[in-house]
Amino acid sequence: MELIASFQQYIEQHQLFKKQDRLLLAVSGGLDSAVLCYLCHTLQYDITIAHCNFNLRGAESDADEAFVMKLAQQLHVPIFVKHFNTLAIAAQQKKSIETTARELRYQWFTELLQQSKLNDVTPLKYILTAHHANDNVETVVMQFFRGTGIDGLTGIAQKQPQLIRPLLFATRKELTQFAQDNNIAFVTDSSNASNDYTRNYFRNDIIPSIEKVYAAATNNVLHNIERMQDVAFIYHQFIQNVLNKICQPNGDAVHIAVNQLKAMKPLASIVYEMCKPYNFTAAQTIEVIKLLESDTGKYVLSSTHRILKNRNWLIIAPLQPATMAHHVIEEADKTVVFSNKKLLLQHIEPTNFEISNDKNIACVDAKNIVYPLLLRKWKQGDYFYPLGLPKQKKISRFLIDQKVSMIDKENVLVIESNKKIIWVVGHRIDDRFKVTGSTKYILKLHLVDC
Amino acid sequence: MELIASFQQYIEQHQLFKKQDRLLLAVSGGLDSAVLCYLCHTLQYDITIAHCNFNLRGAESDADEAFVMKLAQQLHVPIFVKHFNTLAIAAQQKKSIETTARELRYQWFTELLQQSKLNDVTPLKYILTAHHANDNVETVVMQFFRGTGIDGLTGIAQKQPQLIRPLLFATRKELTQFAQDNNIAFVTDSSNASNDYTRNYFRNDIIPSIEKVYAAATNNVLHNIERMQDVAFIYHQFIQNVLNKICQPNGDAVHIAVNQLKAMKPLASIVYEMCKPYNFTAAQTIEVIKLLESDTGKYVLSSTHRILKNRNWLIIAPLQPATMAHHVIEEADKTVVFSNKKLLLQHIEPTNFEISNDKNIACVDAKNIVYPLLLRKWKQGDYFYPLGLPKQKKISRFLIDQKVSMIDKENVLVIESNKKIIWVVGHRIDDRFKVTGSTKYILKLHLVDC
Repeated sequence: MELIASFQQYIEQHQLFKKQDRLLLAVSGGLDSAVLCYLCHTLQYDITIAHCNFNLRGAESDADEAFVMKLAQQLHVPIFVKHFNTLAIAAQQKKSIETTARELRYQWFTELLQQSKLNDVTPLKYILTAHHANDNVETVVMQFFRGTGIDGLTGIAQKQPQLIRPLLFATRKELTQFAQDNNIAFVTDSSNASNDYTRNYFRNDIIPSIEKVYAAATNNVLHNIERMQDVAFIYHQFIQNVLNKICQPNGDAVHIAVNQLKAMKPLASIVYEMCKPYNFTAAQTIEVIKLLESDTGKYVLSSTHRILKNRNWLIIAPLQPATMAHHVIEEADKTVVFSNKKLLLQHIEPTNFEISNDKNIACVDAKNIVYPLLLRKWKQGDYFYPLGLPKQKKISRFLIDQKVSMIDKENVLVIESNKKIIWVVGHRIDDRFKVTGSTKYILKLHLVDC
Repeated sequence: MELIASFQQYIEQHQLFKKQDRLLLAVSGGLDSAVLCYLCHTLQYDITIAHCNFNLRGAESDADEAFVMKLAQQLHVPIFVKHFNTLAIAAQQKKSIETTARELRYQWFTELLQQSKLNDVTPLKYILTAHHANDNVETVVMQFFRGTGIDGLTGIAQKQPQLIRPLLFATRKELTQFAQDNNIAFVTDSSNASNDYTRNYFRNDIIPSIEKVYAAATNNVLHNIERMQDVAFIYHQFIQNVLNKICQPNGDAVHIAVNQLKAMKPLASIVYEMCKPYNFTAAQTIEVIKLLESDTGKYVLSSTHRILKNRNWLIIAPLQPATMAHHVIEEADKTVVFSNKKLLLQHIEPTNFEISNDKNIACVDAKNIVYPLLLRKWKQGDYFYPLGLPKQKKISRFLIDQKVSMIDKENVLVIESNKKIIWVVGHRIDDRFKVTGSTKYILKLHLVDC
């Protein structure tokens, strides 16, 4: 009965949950979850069972379901059962069966909690899973060889906001012994040896091979996990302090003084953690460090953000949404809406023409316009004939001369007609399209906020 | 020739050594050290070879020696060779052959550097060994399963005060390829497969098994090592700051305010690092944490130190040297020397007797003294009849009433005659042995510093 006392102590010591909390137990019917049921029931916690039938093993899946149903009946506890067409969903989502099953499981458990919040006087508060110490060791060992920062060595979280693993303190051997001593029935998943190939390879092959030379390897890794949790706590506290010091929020962007960052130690980890929230990878850390010595204008991209070197600053800013990429404008279009702006198009006669000082208004001779027009961001290599200048000029050069800031430069738009730029939006029209004395029709373009 | 450039870059980037430094290369003649020789020679570093013949493989050992001698000759570099009777020394020191060989090797290299400092105008500055990236991975993986703190995951040090490993950047595969491309000869140690059983098991069995599922495992662990070096830097900086705050040196001892320590996070790691310099083990951390809630007087021992709970303080203090345990004093002894004090014994006649205020002098009636006397520390259960008091008193109680501090209490000595305590040294004689009007001979005891 020692395991019951350890279970109780573990729950209290880590304040996992309280006597009055309603608990949703994920029960496959296997050894681990059967023991978890028994422990919770013995200690009179308020439990409800949830069982997923993934329909992956035909009659066996149904037998497991029947077993868990009967268990709930015997313990007089409520039960939820759900069937999943796992194979079809996996095929449809192009994911592995294990990933699909895991996602379906946690999604459904979360739904059950949400429903309970709406319907029950005392709603279900936590999901409990039966992960144990050996699961934890396997996870950490796999992470170690897959490559990981310190967080990967801290193991499975014992408590997340809605999810608790109260068996992490116990080894598989202890659970097996306990089930035997207390005649706890459980089902044996015939697919255990194939379900998750890599995990089973570590469980049944690699770790036992290591235990041949280091008999205490599993315990040693468990002890490492405890120590690495402390180390990770220290690491994140340190990094957070540094980032609070050096990162200056600026609208959507974050500005970092290059000299201040360069003086920080250890640089690689600080840069890595600084960039991670913006979806940069560990491998990009070295590129970002190179930026510190780069010329203005160099940048590194993630899927969502750009880190730009601008003189003495690094600027982390979101990429423009993809919808901004290109807008095709037909002759009949009067309005083009994009992100938070719109472009109004109007044909007017020269008699109604007034010169405007509004930078967001451009008037061009309609004669030379070929449809469709293209509204897009400027790009390297673009050039035009700026109004009032006798020769063509690269837009990159033009924007520098206009003293447009690095960040604003990113967002400059152009309107193109037959591969000629007619307007650098908000800045200057092209000399070739200017309104002259012989203009018969004028196209008026007006950029306004939505 | 890429490896040469990487070698040079690695040396410069980590400031391992300079062109003018004289380097002592540890050369077994195997692949790794042969390549190291070649690289250093090609880049015209000032090298001297040191070769250990451990006489473990008969003719093969001698053939290796001859090979390295010839290599030195071809490269025109100086060489030192030394023979060791490894088996005999290992047997004598009761150590494994690998440990013995390693210790002999580094000991001799260090001697060569010291000799050079005395004899040479430009002395040998660093010892170089040919450890490479795979050695590093093996070391870290073994540490991981043996159980380790963060330091065990930072790998082999590339630079220690006298010792440099300039090949840690290169993999075994790269070195093999380079040797092949450049026709570099080397010897193959036939005992490689048995020399260090555990290391070879990881090299030839465990790591290749892991690479079957994680092909990049070796590179991933190398990358972990880099990241963990940063993490360890942060960890130690944090711990040092905390310890500077909470540890108050006090003579030989260190005092720590219990309430201040208890408020620190993460407690386990802070306590572990606080105790480690005093030879406490990781497993004792939990005992020391329990002391925080214990009664005054409880303590935890290491081989050299004691951590004592004394009201609101933890006191870490060295144990008394073992030589202090017991001193047997014969009638003829005039002086007893122990640690840094001595006890002088003198028989005097009452006519020469003067009452002294010196606490370190005691005069007792010689009549009741039975030899040998015993000089020892007091222990729990000891009692005596304090001079001037009518009844016996426990020494523990006596010392409390005398307001002797916890730490001083540890060190209080008594002199015992026929199981009776005649003097609580420095405090009070026993009433039963006091000098009276009828005393014929006096024993004068005098404690003095050496």
